Amino acid sequence: MKMGTMIHGVGEKMSDWRHPELPSDASVSLKFYIEQAQKAEEGKFDFVFIADALHINEHSNPHYLNRFEPLTILSALAAVTSHIGLVGTLSTTYSEPFSAARQFASLDMISGGRAGWNVVTSGLEKTALNFSQEVKDHPDHAARYRKASEYIDVMQGLWKSWEDDAFIRDKETGIFMYKEKMHELNHAGEFFSVKGPLNIGRSRQGEPVIFQAGSSADGKDLAAKKADTVFAIIPSITKAQNYYHDLKQRVEQYGRNPEDVFVMQGISPIIGKTDKEAEAKYQELARLVEIDQALAFLSRLFEFHDFSTYPLDELFPDVGDLGKNSFRSDTDRIKQEAIEESLTLREVALREATPRPLFMGTPEKVADLMEEWFESRATDGFIIIANLPSYLGDFIDAVVPILQERGLFRKNYEANTLRENLGLRIPRHCSMTEISR
Amino acid sequence: MKMGTMIHGVGEKMSDWRHPELPSDASVSLKFYIEQAQKAEEGKFDFVFIADALHINEHSNPHYLNRFEPLTILSALAAVTSHIGLVGTLSTTYSEPFSAARQFASLDMISGGRAGWNVVTSGLEKTALNFSQEVKDHPDHAARYRKASEYIDVMQGLWKSWEDDAFIRDKETGIFMYKEKMHELNHAGEFFSVKGPLNIGRSRQGEPVIFQAGSSADGKDLAAKKADTVFAIIPSITKAQNYYHDLKQRVEQYGRNPEDVFVMQGISPIIGKTDKEAEAKYQELARLVEIDQALAFLSRLFEFHDFSTYPLDELFPDVGDLGKNSFRSDTDRIKQEAIEESLTLREVALREATPRPLFMGTPEKVADLMEEWFESRATDGFIIIANLPSYLGDFIDAVVPILQERGLFRKNYEANTLRENLGLRIPRHCSMTEISR
Repeated sequence: MKMGTMIHGVGEKMSDWRHPELPSDASVSLKFYIEQAQKAEEGKFDFVFIADALHINEHSNPHYLNRFEPLTILSALAAVTSHIGLVGTLSTTYSEPFSAARQFASLDMISGGRAGWNVVTSGLEKTALNFSQEVKDHPDHAARYRKASEYIDVMQGLWKSWEDDAFIRDKETGIFMYKEKMHELNHAGEFFSVKGPLNIGRSRQGEPVIFQAGSSADGKDLAAKKADTVFAIIPSITKAQNYYHDLKQRVEQYGRNPEDVFVMQGISPIIGKTDKEAEAKYQELARLVEIDQALAFLSRLFEFHDFSTYPLDELFPDVGDLGKNSFRSDTDRIKQEAIEESLTLREVALREATPRPLFMGTPEKVADLMEEWFESRATDGFIIIANLPSYLGDFIDAVVPILQERGLFRKNYEANTLRENLGLRIPRHCSMTEISR
Repeated sequence: MKMGTMIHGVGEKMSDWRHPELPSDASVSLKFYIEQAQKAEEGKFDFVFIADALHINEHSNPHYLNRFEPLTILSALAAVTSHIGLVGTLSTTYSEPFSAARQFASLDMISGGRAGWNVVTSGLEKTALNFSQEVKDHPDHAARYRKASEYIDVMQGLWKSWEDDAFIRDKETGIFMYKEKMHELNHAGEFFSVKGPLNIGRSRQGEPVIFQAGSSADGKDLAAKKADTVFAIIPSITKAQNYYHDLKQRVEQYGRNPEDVFVMQGISPIIGKTDKEAEAKYQELARLVEIDQALAFLSRLFEFHDFSTYPLDELFPDVGDLGKNSFRSDTDRIKQEAIEESLTLREVALREATPRPLFMGTPEKVADLMEEWFESRATDGFIIIANLPSYLGDFIDAVVPILQERGLFRKNYEANTLRENLGLRIPRHCSMTEISR
């Protein structure tokens, strides 16, 4: 199976930073990021993953307020790792594909072919205000995904500005490159016009791997059309199997081989020597959360709707369409669960703030569950989203060896590019042109 | 005196890559960049400097065609150095200040306060075609500098989104940050409207140092208004003194202390045990240049004007205003020198392709010259632009110890932030607000 981990400083949750173990400046600590990446490399993981967002306010969670930008921190990690993939998030709604293509290609070159790009579209409409636009200019969900699709085309086109063997660098003849092997893109589409060529060539893996977290229908279609790897967080094996089946079908509908696109489930395992020890660790985390922080966390998903005006212990309120245009897959799930399970606002908020991990217990139990998900085609692999550094350490020290013993996970890296370790084909880019020298 | 070095792979010139010593893939070799940065740090340099540009064509020089992007490579270097400053170029004409502010702040945080931003405005009008604009949309020289000025304001404003002590991170009380110490920017200007706050706080040096290469009048004014450090390449001590005097006067006119802005001269020293050995090294470089490559190099400065149609051995042609809107200071100088010295096209092209270094000869001779420039207020320091790695090595091993012996250059770093090593004040950002805890 494939394996990655998200490195995210003080975490995606509101209160993990209060845990005694977690350095409270972890989100801006190079030392922390290096330790996590090197630990994941010791565990032979395929990649580390850095998430991102472009709009904050005073209610945002601690990690969002003050954290490294993905491309810079991944480049730093490239210098102190050798085999692990380096995947970073970049929004297609508020950036220029020429600059993004350069930076990802540069990371890919710096790391010797280990870069990956996680395509996101920026759900929060107020993001527009940071980019010289107005809220009304923020594209709706469908337009954002159309733009993302075109953006990926431009990126991949720019990454093909130079053929693999364009730079011959012959000191004798003075020929540095073959002009015939340089290609302008001349893209002109709905959102972008980009001439090229890009001012950087191809890496050892050709070009960066495309990641996407496709959960909405638009998102799944984009992933099926363009992505190499799809990141999902689905907390039930049956739903995950449905998702997996649905996505692979869409991949086929777009004329691609379903085996060329991997589904990766994000999980937050908590390991204990006994189930009881694991449960105690979870309870320790849950106790750190205060209800007002849990409401603030929920609020961000629902376009910063103020939940503090509702009674806490009555049924989760009907908020209508709210969330449809931002984090649709999360908000749809939350609304559905609230109805299905008759949850109160307090229950929903606390559950979202500290979801009970499905993958919790002894190393054997967690390995069993992972094997079950993998073998029953609920996923092709996992992205470990550890609440605390020791949770990642426990997973690597105790669960990974079991998976290795069972032949489910590599004991050594097969290669030192992300594409090869994931088992993806390296896209060759060579014309048939004979160059007479 | 201050000291930096430009790291630029196979170099700014057309043909240095053909030298046997230079790895021909140096512009995309992490190993090469790390070696150069670590050597400069061994030499106690204030900073390394990475130049940039956003438009290439088949006539561009080898380094431009296939090189690292500055912010990514500098972030990689941050992980393997500890004291040296990391200065990168970013254009204000084709980027978003919110993203740029984040990336530079992130580099600054990754490096523990060693980041610098070299502000450029992108001279080549065809750059527009890579950014969904047309050539006619490329702003003229004056508009580019107005935009740059506003851009710097936005960057510096975003870097003040959080006060120095905003992130209190009190695990006991659960207070991560003081909301009173978070500030929206709410900038609305001619070119940009940016709300903020930025999603990253201040580094150990407060915020990145501003570099600018102000040579035109617009450029010098921008530098005088906003920059901490000005980068110039002026090949005569008298002209450099005039420039220095002019710039410091402008700094004063803008109400700033002239000692708060440093002039750094870019020089390409060639050191030999004897003057003759140095001259032989220079001739070896000059011999690598072919006349058609020299013409191509010249062409880029003059808006890609085709010089191959003129007779090589007649006086440099009258090209009118060409170059005025791109690399004005270079092209003005070239036109002036051609007239003053009655140079032919061949002479101009070869001289630009391999200028005879002013700082050439024995270590003592080069140290003497540097001392003369420094003491006579022609400059506050130097940026070493070495043609070959050994030229940087020679300078550090042979010239730096002389400068140290004379008390002209540090023997050890005073600090580990760029600002402190340059002798710049760390800008504090604290309100007087008492926060009751």
